[in-house]
Amino acid sequence: MTELPLDTPGAPRPTLAAGDLPVAFSDPVYLAAVVDLLGAIAYGEMSAFDRLSEDAKMAPELADKVELARMACTEFAHFEGLSQRLTELGAQPFEAMAPFQVPFDAFHARTAPSDWLEGLVKAYVGDGLAGDFYREIATFLDSDTRTIIVESLSDAGQSRFVVDRVRAAIAKDPRVGGRLALWGRRLMGEALSQAQRVAAERDALTALLAGGVDRPGMDLAAIGRLFTRLTENHSQRMESLGLSA
Amino acid sequence: MTELPLDTPGAPRPTLAAGDLPVAFSDPVYLAAVVDLLGAIAYGEMSAFDRLSEDAKMAPELADKVELARMACTEFAHFEGLSQRLTELGAQPFEAMAPFQVPFDAFHARTAPSDWLEGLVKAYVGDGLAGDFYREIATFLDSDTRTIIVESLSDAGQSRFVVDRVRAAIAKDPRVGGRLALWGRRLMGEALSQAQRVAAERDALTALLAGGVDRPGMDLAAIGRLFTRLTENHSQRMESLGLSA
Repeated sequence: MTELPLDTPGAPRPTLAAGDLPVAFSDPVYLAAVVDLLGAIAYGEMSAFDRLSEDAKMAPELADKVELARMACTEFAHFEGLSQRLTELGAQPFEAMAPFQVPFDAFHARTAPSDWLEGLVKAYVGDGLAGDFYREIATFLDSDTRTIIVESLSDAGQSRFVVDRVRAAIAKDPRVGGRLALWGRRLMGEALSQAQRVAAERDALTALLAGGVDRPGMDLAAIGRLFTRLTENHSQRMESLGLSA
Repeated sequence: MTELPLDTPGAPRPTLAAGDLPVAFSDPVYLAAVVDLLGAIAYGEMSAFDRLSEDAKMAPELADKVELARMACTEFAHFEGLSQRLTELGAQPFEAMAPFQVPFDAFHARTAPSDWLEGLVKAYVGDGLAGDFYREIATFLDSDTRTIIVESLSDAGQSRFVVDRVRAAIAKDPRVGGRLALWGRRLMGEALSQAQRVAAERDALTALLAGGVDRPGMDLAAIGRLFTRLTENHSQRMESLGLSA
């Protein structure tokens, strides 16, 4: 197990070389871990579609509703790409997603937004956190899988829209900022709690982070630094919304 | 006003020639009518996105939910194309859609499906009816507008999916067929009632059907035949679902 300088900005990240797909996937543990990971991200994208299309109903104006619908369809397009990749890897996409339905649904049930602004903050903070986490894991994967994951996390202009709307709402009524700051903290807590649940249940995913004979991995100190980075990025996102983390 | 042989299968349909866009749009009545029509279709597509993403929540399995989400995103892509066209014509898309919010929302409020199968029948029967109607109107339009409308009505494999699911449900429990047949008749009735409301309120649209100095139109007998065709197509769709119309 090699400790990696992941927290050094600009440091080269350890990855398997391009074109090594057959070798990497000859390891059944690796294949199982990638299927797990893609299944988790795919189900997350489908949940995001659900959540965004539901939140669109709370939009104050038709133009806002259209923005949310556009985000929902971007997430769905990512879902389709991930499903296709799962099929290429010989997995049945819906089977690969099944283990993640309960934790994702639990997260969304516990964090159902009570209004339009809470929905926007959730979309921004939740997607940001998930994206950071998946990008970190992707550095341990073969280049094809990494590319698919990173593409599926691309922001289609959503962030700008959310930041503008939330800052405008706080400017209009500063009390909104206090309520949304609490909401952001709750989202982070619930996300970490569901992530722990997944880590405890999915051995293949955990093994991926720990590395293997031919693969780099993270020791406990590196995992600690990973969580520090996730928390720091979360704080930056809250700040960009004009909220204290 | 010229009476058109629209009900003769295979008869050449009267349309303005390709490339005549500037001439056609120099008539402000024509421009207003096209903006109205595109606004109506665009709002209809956005409503369809809403309805399908809502119905997706009732899906018995994840695979079914994905099918509905895919349909919803196809409708949204059509919405985006129509909005762009409205902008090209110098219209503000949301203003063009505004007059149609009330009748479309009323239609959907009066026909909220109570279960998954009612949602499927509504998607199939409602989209089919709207599509037939818009295609009929499109024959009176310049070729660019007609192309955009016809493309926005394309079926992305939805029909096959709906027909399969509904027939399977009826085969399993024939009583379902009776309930869904009543539902289909109610959908047709509510759709006609909202269409009448739109026709009464939107003079430009009605003028489009009636034709103008340089444009072909329909007399009352032709409009009667149009409704006969709409009803016949509706009956065929009900039959393909295994339902009596």
